[in-house]
Amino acid sequence: MPRYGKITKEIYGELLAVTGPGGVTADEEALDNYAWDQAGRVWGHMPEAVVKPADTEQVSKIMKIASRERIPVTPRGAGSGLNGGAVPRAGGIVLSLERMNRILEIDPVNRVAVVEPGVVTNDLCRAAAERGFLYAGYPMSTETSFIGGNFATNAGGGKVIRYGSTRRHILGAEVVLPSGEVLELGGRYRKDTWGYSLLSLLVGSEGTLAVATKLIVNLEPKPGRTVNLLACYPTVEQLVESVAKVIGSGRRIISCEFMDRKLVKYTTEYLGCTLPEQERSEAYLLIQLEGDTDEQLEDGYETVGKICLAGGAFEVFVAESRTDSAAMWNVRQNGLEGMRAKDPYACSSGDLMVPLSAVPEMLRRIKKIAEEWNVEIGIIAHIGDGNIHPIPLKPDGMSPEEWARYAEDFFAALIREAIALGGVGSGEHGVGHVKQKILLENKTPAELEVLRGVKKAFDPLGIMNPGKMFSPLEED
Amino acid sequence: MPRYGKITKEIYGELLAVTGPGGVTADEEALDNYAWDQAGRVWGHMPEAVVKPADTEQVSKIMKIASRERIPVTPRGAGSGLNGGAVPRAGGIVLSLERMNRILEIDPVNRVAVVEPGVVTNDLCRAAAERGFLYAGYPMSTETSFIGGNFATNAGGGKVIRYGSTRRHILGAEVVLPSGEVLELGGRYRKDTWGYSLLSLLVGSEGTLAVATKLIVNLEPKPGRTVNLLACYPTVEQLVESVAKVIGSGRRIISCEFMDRKLVKYTTEYLGCTLPEQERSEAYLLIQLEGDTDEQLEDGYETVGKICLAGGAFEVFVAESRTDSAAMWNVRQNGLEGMRAKDPYACSSGDLMVPLSAVPEMLRRIKKIAEEWNVEIGIIAHIGDGNIHPIPLKPDGMSPEEWARYAEDFFAALIREAIALGGVGSGEHGVGHVKQKILLENKTPAELEVLRGVKKAFDPLGIMNPGKMFSPLEED
Repeated sequence: MPRYGKITKEIYGELLAVTGPGGVTADEEALDNYAWDQAGRVWGHMPEAVVKPADTEQVSKIMKIASRERIPVTPRGAGSGLNGGAVPRAGGIVLSLERMNRILEIDPVNRVAVVEPGVVTNDLCRAAAERGFLYAGYPMSTETSFIGGNFATNAGGGKVIRYGSTRRHILGAEVVLPSGEVLELGGRYRKDTWGYSLLSLLVGSEGTLAVATKLIVNLEPKPGRTVNLLACYPTVEQLVESVAKVIGSGRRIISCEFMDRKLVKYTTEYLGCTLPEQERSEAYLLIQLEGDTDEQLEDGYETVGKICLAGGAFEVFVAESRTDSAAMWNVRQNGLEGMRAKDPYACSSGDLMVPLSAVPEMLRRIKKIAEEWNVEIGIIAHIGDGNIHPIPLKPDGMSPEEWARYAEDFFAALIREAIALGGVGSGEHGVGHVKQKILLENKTPAELEVLRGVKKAFDPLGIMNPGKMFSPLEED
Repeated sequence: MPRYGKITKEIYGELLAVTGPGGVTADEEALDNYAWDQAGRVWGHMPEAVVKPADTEQVSKIMKIASRERIPVTPRGAGSGLNGGAVPRAGGIVLSLERMNRILEIDPVNRVAVVEPGVVTNDLCRAAAERGFLYAGYPMSTETSFIGGNFATNAGGGKVIRYGSTRRHILGAEVVLPSGEVLELGGRYRKDTWGYSLLSLLVGSEGTLAVATKLIVNLEPKPGRTVNLLACYPTVEQLVESVAKVIGSGRRIISCEFMDRKLVKYTTEYLGCTLPEQERSEAYLLIQLEGDTDEQLEDGYETVGKICLAGGAFEVFVAESRTDSAAMWNVRQNGLEGMRAKDPYACSSGDLMVPLSAVPEMLRRIKKIAEEWNVEIGIIAHIGDGNIHPIPLKPDGMSPEEWARYAEDFFAALIREAIALGGVGSGEHGVGHVKQKILLENKTPAELEVLRGVKKAFDPLGIMNPGKMFSPLEED
């Protein structure tokens, strides 16, 4: 197999002829914006060119050129990923979908929206709400992330406990193969046993198999009214014991989120606010409940509130207004920014996934390992799903480059514990290249062989997002 | 590539040594039971041997022998499939999972059940209910089908509208590859972006990629109480117009099922019962609603009842008792048996899937084509999903062999219409070999190439269930 091709002047011209003026750039300063994602700059790598197609036909033509010349192509949404999934490790083309950002249709009878991949998730949420529907994919980065990136990472977020991850909401997709061929998968219908579900497989494949150019997504009927509760606990152990009871209460729980003391401290400092009982709380549960009527809502928050208090919470606050609710969620949604305000090298790729029954033990092991590694951490978690995000700060005096390796090893140690407890190393952030090493260590040779066979079925030349997940990076 | 291997006396002995006495048979009479499924005898084919492993290790050893000798292996559950998916078209081994039928665990904290593939779906439903949970996979064949078969076909059924098809309920699986290697996929957790989702891909792969030997399935919290409504309509058109309004009512609709006049006529004759207004009804809607309280239930059936009456229903009957409900559902669940009582060659592989908005037009086209083809049909449908099952009777004087070809062509004609309306040829029954020809006609060369590449990644020797879906049958 030859090495990857380079973007010559001729190829640059050819790409520009496909996209038209402004669609291709190789300007060093402009390229830098596309060299890294929210994993952090130290995990970045410069592309040779950024190409911004305006439609499917252009994507197809670009992929044909890339295949012909064996040029690596890394699809990119908003760049809000947390594991370097959109980083062009082998150089080549960053294929930015930012210009393909139209909501093409809201179809109320079939309860779907048809969108281009560059639509900001929140714009889709708003457009759906205006028509009386809910788009239930809800990553924490909803204000910035693109729906195409949600598709590529099978994004989770704050509503998974009720509505499931992104895969559940993707009913159809138009995708372009590395060869430039266009496939139409699924559609405006809700069941499909018409051949293997390539669609299910593509969700979460991190741009290593194909480029999505159009998505048909499920819309949920407009939800009932919601209410938010904030429960303040003296110990993490007591909080965790409440969680299974809250989930099992039979009430309509939309979210069940966890924040520990450190995270709340730094985030409230960053935001200039406080949460109730902040001095004496070790951890918080933020719970969102749904109901159709006042009575249901009241029954919901009374039941859940009692569970929390019986479990040892100091207090349970019920948000009385939109403003109260927004204040509670503001801290949760800005947890990463809060940690980054304290230390710009705070690493957010941590994304441990364990069975609910293993959450208490996992939290104990995280604390223990953080101490052993001499790393200060804050923790946020979609705790109702068993999905835990420890966010470590760079130790003083360590260089950013040392930290990149150190943090990878730190997470590898945590992931080994998660796997030992019956879990995996990522519930929603994906693998990218930050977690590649530990993924390879963890998968059996038999599974890796199948995974690589699947990759080859889509991408025989190995040009799609090389060096990610389980695919090796061919070194020059 | 050599032809498939045959089961010699030596290999027979080797298989028997794996399973122990009673685990292998080549007795002609016994084999006949494993030669066909509910597609019908005319789509059957005799195996050379039936092998019944007792555990995963035995499955692995059997697959190693089969790989070494290139003997075809067709996994089989209850044989309740409707498209010949479990028919051993190339002979070889039928791998019956009937002895692996234990419910290994109900895990209430993680809300999962761990089961072997040979568990009857209804046994799982009952075991879950005893612990206060719901297993929400609910194929119409729940009394006979195995959970392993539900996995293999991504079974749908009567509760999809609320809970989704089987894929949504499979959280983990132990599977044996054709090579005999065992993979552990997923687990007792609910989010996973740790490499491609081979698990999602395997659901619905009809035993062409691997054999599932253990499944971890999602349990839902115990549902609220339900109530059943039967609405009787003078015309199909009026009924169909009500459906989108019922679905969009915001009430908790669990099922929305359709039965036409012919199907009700033959099925009530078979069961020796009647449905209300049977003389003047062209079609029925059977709707199940959920609520937590009497008030919610009442609000639900009043709202939905009014929608149906406003849409032209003669009457809407609310089941007052369990007996009433059972009587309504009895007709729905025995629709196929009712048609088969009229004509043992009634073909049940029909499984059209269209967007909800296309249901009225699809029903018109089904009637038109049935007339053109001179075929008498009854229709049942998961109409709330847009999933329609026309069941044709063999015309008088046609031989069963002619009928097998005629019915395939009849369904191919219908499937072309479903595809033209934005749908596909199967929502839940799968492809098997009965619909292979029309599948191949419908998929693009680019998609077929990817599908075959995926198949090769799992099954390089082509021994898993040959001649199904898009895989050709190698002729001797």
